[in-house]
Amino acid sequence: MRAEIIGVGTEILLGQIANSNAQWISEKLADIGVDVLHHQVVGDNVDRIADAFRLALSRSDAVIVTGGLGPTQDDVTRDGIAAALGVKLERRSEIEDFLRERFAGLGREMPAINLVQADVPEGARYILPERGTAPGLVCETADGRVLYAVAGVPAEMREMMENTILPDLVRRGGGAAIVSRVLRVTGVPESGVAELLDDLFAANTNPTVAYLASAGEVKVRLTAKAPTRGEAEDLIAPLAEEVAERLAPHVFSTGDEELEQVVGRELRARSKTVACAESLTGGGLASRLTRAPGASDYFLGSAVTYTADAKRDVLGVSKETIDGPGVVSEECAREMAAGARELFGAEVAVALTGVAGPDEHGGQPPGQVWLALDADDAREARGFRAPGDREQVRRWAEQAALDLLRRYLQGTLTS
Amino acid sequence: MRAEIIGVGTEILLGQIANSNAQWISEKLADIGVDVLHHQVVGDNVDRIADAFRLALSRSDAVIVTGGLGPTQDDVTRDGIAAALGVKLERRSEIEDFLRERFAGLGREMPAINLVQADVPEGARYILPERGTAPGLVCETADGRVLYAVAGVPAEMREMMENTILPDLVRRGGGAAIVSRVLRVTGVPESGVAELLDDLFAANTNPTVAYLASAGEVKVRLTAKAPTRGEAEDLIAPLAEEVAERLAPHVFSTGDEELEQVVGRELRARSKTVACAESLTGGGLASRLTRAPGASDYFLGSAVTYTADAKRDVLGVSKETIDGPGVVSEECAREMAAGARELFGAEVAVALTGVAGPDEHGGQPPGQVWLALDADDAREARGFRAPGDREQVRRWAEQAALDLLRRYLQGTLTS
Repeated sequence: MRAEIIGVGTEILLGQIANSNAQWISEKLADIGVDVLHHQVVGDNVDRIADAFRLALSRSDAVIVTGGLGPTQDDVTRDGIAAALGVKLERRSEIEDFLRERFAGLGREMPAINLVQADVPEGARYILPERGTAPGLVCETADGRVLYAVAGVPAEMREMMENTILPDLVRRGGGAAIVSRVLRVTGVPESGVAELLDDLFAANTNPTVAYLASAGEVKVRLTAKAPTRGEAEDLIAPLAEEVAERLAPHVFSTGDEELEQVVGRELRARSKTVACAESLTGGGLASRLTRAPGASDYFLGSAVTYTADAKRDVLGVSKETIDGPGVVSEECAREMAAGARELFGAEVAVALTGVAGPDEHGGQPPGQVWLALDADDAREARGFRAPGDREQVRRWAEQAALDLLRRYLQGTLTS
Repeated sequence: MRAEIIGVGTEILLGQIANSNAQWISEKLADIGVDVLHHQVVGDNVDRIADAFRLALSRSDAVIVTGGLGPTQDDVTRDGIAAALGVKLERRSEIEDFLRERFAGLGREMPAINLVQADVPEGARYILPERGTAPGLVCETADGRVLYAVAGVPAEMREMMENTILPDLVRRGGGAAIVSRVLRVTGVPESGVAELLDDLFAANTNPTVAYLASAGEVKVRLTAKAPTRGEAEDLIAPLAEEVAERLAPHVFSTGDEELEQVVGRELRARSKTVACAESLTGGGLASRLTRAPGASDYFLGSAVTYTADAKRDVLGVSKETIDGPGVVSEECAREMAAGARELFGAEVAVALTGVAGPDEHGGQPPGQVWLALDADDAREARGFRAPGDREQVRRWAEQAALDLLRRYLQGTLTS
């Protein structure tokens, strides 16, 4: 099956926003084995939109359109579809009812301009949205091709893609099903992950494995293909189990949950409070721990101590450590963690010190990171050399500190 | 002039990378008044690439192609151009010499596969790169249209766009030149900026003004068109001066410099040290102040105090304030700033407290922010209600705190 993605919106052509929807959809289609051969972007002009749709339907089996389904005069995707298919728009009373209810739920009357969102090309089906007010459209052509149209707002687009369009494409793909499992790993490099798993995939092309590395994280993606979803699940299940077992202590998520969300959830589940002490990350660790709503349930504070004096005065790092191994050392990280725990009265504290770069500092090279964790029942430290530029070193350091905390909370510190 | 941008690369169609080049080029073309009516993306397939070029040359005056100019088998943009234009590729010895020299400069011999980068469609011109090894191509058609091809690596693409292609497009546009000036403003809302400037543009369509608002910042862009660059400069200069004067205390940058970079530069220039105290931003303010290399010249530390206890114990916020106006109050912000200044021994300190949301806190609504600055020669506080979600409120609060610091350093606190 060949697919094509069309973004509608003058703001993309003006460079005001990126066409990030096309990337997201492309990735999802690759996951289910649908080949994307073209992207197009057109502005809010009904003739050019209709031309783009005609071209796409002449060369692709499935066309996915994002944007132009709002209620304003600029939103002409509906008209473009009608023109390309040579049909009229008809107003659907059941969508009208839905829109009135949606507005009533917000305590507002529906503005008259929203009525156009109840217009559907003759013969097309529609998808009612859980978010927003723009119904999606599913338009089939006489020769068996299909054009889907969804809102350009990413959250609204994703909802319809995940709930309706991706399953529909799998069904249309002649029954071939593709199942993926993602394991998000931290605390072990890409080469280490590959070493742990490579024998499983050496003679295996289905399921396949792919690794995607970023600062402090490796995404492991398993993908199985089979005639039916059930068979694909059966193919992937034993292998996924084996992979999960081998990587167990290093896997922090099997979905969209970020490392700081996992840590927050574990802290809340265990009714523990946390504090930090940071140097090279300059507040980045605390910023990530407080990104989620409700972080005040477990996060008490962080001492961002950028100077040796601040480490001594605020956290009580000893003169011996500062003058001896120095501020970028295991000893300093340990004393910072203990100091932060005491300062904020937290049950567990993590501390970070290091050299973000680009220059060396106190005889230590850029990328050198020391971190430590301090709790009643655990005292741990780790050192490593992070690759990349200043921003990447900071990201690596944050990931490592969050992971130390995760392993402590999940009881896998020594794995 | 109508332009079209074509990204070549299967990795874009797989969703592995975003087509960020299209956004960057679109913005630059908008700046010089060139209308972009289409984007296309095609994979590394010579037939589909040639089809895309033919389509683009049938409807656009200028076509800009990114990607597919590398030395590997996947890189078939050169072949696609030759096929679309119905010409042959010819190897240019002067590009060969350039490539050999480029490799020699790196102390390496040129691999044989790089020779294809010396191939140019008959009748086309080439652009030698300052970075990388991929020459750009400029191909004119018999009917006066033009196709430019540049490397997909963003830095290489930008170099050729800025040095060669954008000036060439301005020249082709009948000699019309477009000059823009950007002023980045903070501390005053978009409507406030418009009020200060609207009379200047009420009866004026050249230069024009455009406002682009984001959390805690308004970008003001002035654009003048004239037959020559000199005339456009003459048109824009007096108006830009008037605008700069009216907005003076609010303008933090007229280029790419971010607010935290401006603050860092001012701190360094004045040999002042700074400390922070943060609540709702959770370390984000310190993280921004330490993003730039060399931040340790002026940044001492930040106390991220997320709880009332931490504000009292670490920063010395009084029991009267916590029990009275509460932790989200002007009084608390002032005491936090004074406390941070003393804790870190800084010459100036800024403090932030507020409610990031989504829920209210201590009787204060989401978005409520208080900030304060404390120095020997200034004690200031500000309160405001930031719009948006949790992430946006945090961004607004950081911007406001950085701006308070900027105004103190630049002596415009009371403007």
